[in-house]
Amino acid sequence: MENFEFFIPTRVIFGKETHLQVGKIVKEYGFHRVLVHFGGASAKKTGLLDAVLDALKAEGIGCVTLGGVQANPTLSMVRQGIELCLKEHVDFVLAVGGGSVIDSAKCIADGAGNPGVDVWSYFRHEAVPRTALPVGTILTLSASGSEMSASCVITNEENGFKRGFNSPTHRPLFSICNPELTYSVSRYQTGCGTVDITMHTLERYFTRTRDTMLTDRIAEGILKSTIEAGRIADREPDNYEARATLMWAGSLSHNGLTSAGRSFLMQVHQMEHELSGMYPQIAHGAGLSALWPSWARYVCSHDVSRFARYGVNVWNIDMDFENPMNTALAGIQATEDFYKSLGMPVTLKELGVERDRIEEMAEKCTNMGQRKLSGIVELGKEEMIEIYGMAMGE
Amino acid sequence: MENFEFFIPTRVIFGKETHLQVGKIVKEYGFHRVLVHFGGASAKKTGLLDAVLDALKAEGIGCVTLGGVQANPTLSMVRQGIELCLKEHVDFVLAVGGGSVIDSAKCIADGAGNPGVDVWSYFRHEAVPRTALPVGTILTLSASGSEMSASCVITNEENGFKRGFNSPTHRPLFSICNPELTYSVSRYQTGCGTVDITMHTLERYFTRTRDTMLTDRIAEGILKSTIEAGRIADREPDNYEARATLMWAGSLSHNGLTSAGRSFLMQVHQMEHELSGMYPQIAHGAGLSALWPSWARYVCSHDVSRFARYGVNVWNIDMDFENPMNTALAGIQATEDFYKSLGMPVTLKELGVERDRIEEMAEKCTNMGQRKLSGIVELGKEEMIEIYGMAMGE
Repeated sequence: MENFEFFIPTRVIFGKETHLQVGKIVKEYGFHRVLVHFGGASAKKTGLLDAVLDALKAEGIGCVTLGGVQANPTLSMVRQGIELCLKEHVDFVLAVGGGSVIDSAKCIADGAGNPGVDVWSYFRHEAVPRTALPVGTILTLSASGSEMSASCVITNEENGFKRGFNSPTHRPLFSICNPELTYSVSRYQTGCGTVDITMHTLERYFTRTRDTMLTDRIAEGILKSTIEAGRIADREPDNYEARATLMWAGSLSHNGLTSAGRSFLMQVHQMEHELSGMYPQIAHGAGLSALWPSWARYVCSHDVSRFARYGVNVWNIDMDFENPMNTALAGIQATEDFYKSLGMPVTLKELGVERDRIEEMAEKCTNMGQRKLSGIVELGKEEMIEIYGMAMGE
Repeated sequence: MENFEFFIPTRVIFGKETHLQVGKIVKEYGFHRVLVHFGGASAKKTGLLDAVLDALKAEGIGCVTLGGVQANPTLSMVRQGIELCLKEHVDFVLAVGGGSVIDSAKCIADGAGNPGVDVWSYFRHEAVPRTALPVGTILTLSASGSEMSASCVITNEENGFKRGFNSPTHRPLFSICNPELTYSVSRYQTGCGTVDITMHTLERYFTRTRDTMLTDRIAEGILKSTIEAGRIADREPDNYEARATLMWAGSLSHNGLTSAGRSFLMQVHQMEHELSGMYPQIAHGAGLSALWPSWARYVCSHDVSRFARYGVNVWNIDMDFENPMNTALAGIQATEDFYKSLGMPVTLKELGVERDRIEEMAEKCTNMGQRKLSGIVELGKEEMIEIYGMAMGE
């Protein structure tokens, strides 16, 4: 086990109808003027936005709204939010939505808390936000884990870069997690979220670090529960227990619990970033689903015992003691079959990716061949070309 | 799954040699004058106390020391600590020790943060501490989970009452967890700690709440890891990975993770409180170990499926599908055998408890028969007399 720090100061308020408490909670902290940040039409259509504004106003809290966040939240929207916060003397940012809205809110809070500093400089690692406006969330999508994580990913349309950075200022002050708010999430988006949750855990599970038995077992428990709940939510979108399990698993998968004592680099996430960077119509979860099985088959011979353990402990596959590779491959196949059963793509071809763009993706992901990503196997440009190629599925 | 709140703002710094960082960490927070609170001779003998004081002084931080905390920390020591904090203008309390030292430090911090309020009034639920001095810990014993929990238990020698209360002020600001510091813990105390960790999880696992699949699986993972690590640490006291697993499992067992979405009342803990209240020489972990198997056999017919699940998922016992009670009882037996293998008592007789004191214990635990403890089975005075009687093991 490696040394680690674990620090998750986010207060989670989890369960039915909890979003109606938002006014009281914001008041309890003593905030006066809130930027309510949200996405598209659905928050309005479902009545959620009105319910939130009513709850805040009932406690005498001033509200400013900024809607329209889309998947892959943009720097221009962030800049608009910062300006609004400063002009309106906002002292708290409330994100009502999924990971994109929350990430946009975190970045607005970084900017509004440090007027005069260009917020993009944080993504270029030229500066570090020492403070920020506090952020709260009302979660409407189980996927990114942003509601409890230190991460934040923004796309700069000015130069086409999609970048992320972690900061203690990014842990929300509180997150209100009501699984009922995810009943209306489409089958496809539910599948993408389920893939994302499993991948946040899997990318931390398949590492070179040994002797993390407790973290491994917690990860396996989260994976088994996510698979079971993902199957149920796919059939019964308004099954509370399944939606609740996915929501809590999403938070736990990305808050640090599943990486306690381990190094990890998220190779598949990094390869997916280039994919959805080049093909913006590809949803993050769909890109991960299309890449992971090929990544796993490429690297598994370098750590057969770990992949065999995954097959046995997560998928209940009988161990083939004479040929553990059979168990390892069966676990990968079970994962692929599961993603397929949710309607997720398991090849790049299904996503319309052209083979002749592969080299460019591998170049971007390795900074023109300058860097290699460490992991079970170190991945450089050539290795990535091979994995992207396998993932084409032709 | 029931609605829940999850809030663990404690920053954990975990791993080898981490205690040497304490000066830098305290300075980072800007504290000037620290009460270093510790237990008996061992902190001095091992050189830990000197190392801590040196690390603090190297950063120019003023130190006041108060040692001598014993198992079942006392109100008189707490009052002494409060007086010292006020007199010396202490702005931070650092506990160097196990659960007793940490609980004593928490209570001192409550008192020093609210001068003029009698600290015992919090335990009588006559007042609530709105603020407190911040507390940090350097953990030397894997057991109570107090390093990440909101709880605090103090014994009032003036009236013989042992009482606890939970408060958000009790979550330490940071906890430094170096498993190496537990190498010197005796076999018996290691066993008591291992029992305490498993019991913190078991008491949350055996509840009436249904549909908590994720919390259940996390609990099972913690239990399996604790059992495995407990066996290794019993044989090899200086096995780092085993000590690290026990330490992290201890924190996770009692911080709220294993009760997310569930109600629980800790019946066995409450029955044990009366036991060690009447026989102060009985260590908490030993009392739990002597009571749990009888408690489990008494209640298991009321939730056979849950006890069978425990046998299968934690102890790898084959399910007896035709007679699940066999699996349930086998899981209880496996637990008892495990505790025994660590040198722990599994009957009250081994602890020197006299049968004619049982009625008095049951009366105290039920407030003279006035209350019943809810759980898988509601326990009143008669039921407790039966369980204490079974636990005699005669």
